[in-house]
Amino acid sequence: MSDIPTYSDIKEAAKRIQGFAHKTPVLQSSFFNQRTGAELFFKCENFQKVGAFKFRGAFNAISQLTEDDGKKGIITHSSGNHAQAVALASKMNGYKATIVMPENAPIVKVNAVRDYGAEIVFCESTIESRQESTDQIISTTGATFIHPYNNADVIAGQGTSAKELLEEVPDLDIIIAPIGGGGLMSGTAIASKSIKPDIKVLGAEPKLADDAYRSFQAGSIQPVLRTDTIADGLRTSLGSLTFQIIKDNVDDIVTVTEESIVRDMRRVWERMKIIIEPSCAVPISALLDGEVDISGKKVGIILTGGNVDLENLPWK
Amino acid sequence: MSDIPTYSDIKEAAKRIQGFAHKTPVLQSSFFNQRTGAELFFKCENFQKVGAFKFRGAFNAISQLTEDDGKKGIITHSSGNHAQAVALASKMNGYKATIVMPENAPIVKVNAVRDYGAEIVFCESTIESRQESTDQIISTTGATFIHPYNNADVIAGQGTSAKELLEEVPDLDIIIAPIGGGGLMSGTAIASKSIKPDIKVLGAEPKLADDAYRSFQAGSIQPVLRTDTIADGLRTSLGSLTFQIIKDNVDDIVTVTEESIVRDMRRVWERMKIIIEPSCAVPISALLDGEVDISGKKVGIILTGGNVDLENLPWK
Repeated sequence: MSDIPTYSDIKEAAKRIQGFAHKTPVLQSSFFNQRTGAELFFKCENFQKVGAFKFRGAFNAISQLTEDDGKKGIITHSSGNHAQAVALASKMNGYKATIVMPENAPIVKVNAVRDYGAEIVFCESTIESRQESTDQIISTTGATFIHPYNNADVIAGQGTSAKELLEEVPDLDIIIAPIGGGGLMSGTAIASKSIKPDIKVLGAEPKLADDAYRSFQAGSIQPVLRTDTIADGLRTSLGSLTFQIIKDNVDDIVTVTEESIVRDMRRVWERMKIIIEPSCAVPISALLDGEVDISGKKVGIILTGGNVDLENLPWK
Repeated sequence: MSDIPTYSDIKEAAKRIQGFAHKTPVLQSSFFNQRTGAELFFKCENFQKVGAFKFRGAFNAISQLTEDDGKKGIITHSSGNHAQAVALASKMNGYKATIVMPENAPIVKVNAVRDYGAEIVFCESTIESRQESTDQIISTTGATFIHPYNNADVIAGQGTSAKELLEEVPDLDIIIAPIGGGGLMSGTAIASKSIKPDIKVLGAEPKLADDAYRSFQAGSIQPVLRTDTIADGLRTSLGSLTFQIIKDNVDDIVTVTEESIVRDMRRVWERMKIIIEPSCAVPISALLDGEVDISGKKVGIILTGGNVDLENLPWK
């Protein structure tokens, strides 16, 4: 599978990850329902293995490798949740993972990846150095590279979250997810439109990393201009595959401020008693700031992850 | 009902709170299972209304008042979760609540109670002043006093959490809860021993507030000697009713250090992505520190609440 994934691929992915990934719970909150005048359903990928939806895609991709390929190893570059996801999914499949990380990556992220048994190769903190280190390892070992989002198997895996959500709450009017590289958004859009063609599929982005919004408006991929949003999972640009899928399947993309992100991250902690990372709050802010008309509607929200440095909370 | 509640009272309480209190979820954690070699089931009262199990008891007591009594108002003294529980349960029953709070109570607690529509009467931060203020209001208004734990209706309400847990996981070998005033522990013990007579019922306390442990050993109520444990929900002494129930129905009480409480509170945040308050971590520390032999056992843990001041986390 190297082309745009279909709903059939997502159904296959769901079978593949069953028993390995968690079927995450769907929570509701009377506080947020009252605030919005809508009925909100939070799909809790923060409770997923490695604390983020990324495990779904990584496991779906890695579990499909032939044993010969798997034995040559798995490789990716990431200092975020995808790194942990590839590390754990490789380990669960009995393969060795190598993660290329910038030498200035937070120690807490490095340790998490190491705890999952992956080897870490440090590189300079530039895109060139990262690519060079990765290419070199691939050329020596023949390891398989798992792209964090521009990969059809990864996208199909991420789509299983929306599939589960719509199976549990079939009459959603709207589904909304954050957009970073677009893997989750792509899988969510394909699954949602296939299960319920009249559902409205929305993406949400920080104003400080609004490349998907601008790409969507322009009709061509626009690069990220800044990387200083607090929503660290959403700093990447779209890929060729995810842009195509989002262009064809997403109804609208809305953007939110940094202040709203921090405010709503905190509100979720205080009111729902669950830990979400800043990227998670982005779609919630879009709903609370009135960017979308949801009054009286049933709205599904993918909560993407809960990996936060508890020593550095954004409201300190 | 003014005597020791029975399981029949807990079943009645369960009917009374249905549709008003949340049926809270039961979560599992592969991290904690691996750490302990047991299978742990976390009953999430941190997701309960007002963020704590206290709502169950307060609603069960207040919803039984005659309309004549209810109209005279409800009163309690507390600066903790019971205050919020009485405030919200009164509001939901259409009654006016008055909460007597020390003038140095944290503003976040004061605001939470006010948000639920209760009137706050401030007193000096002494037991005498608190009692005097309370008595004065009762004598003028005829308001009904709802004790935070030494009240059979409150105890019966708290017991509904263990009832739900055992209905969802009927083959628990052990159930463990923290002990403050003993209301939750009492309701948990009565429900558990009635549903599954051979279950082991355990209580957990901070070493710095081990009055229940000492009372249990001595066979008579021993006062709390210090009030500086971080587990702020567990600083109170047992009441006559709760001591009697605990003496007759609890198999053992174990104690844990402050260091373990903070460590395990943080572990739950990091690994389970849910927010628990320090009191919640006390039974978990008892299990992790080997105070109880749980290898190969199924263990239920009541997570009592998630009300934490996010500006003042104990690991900063």
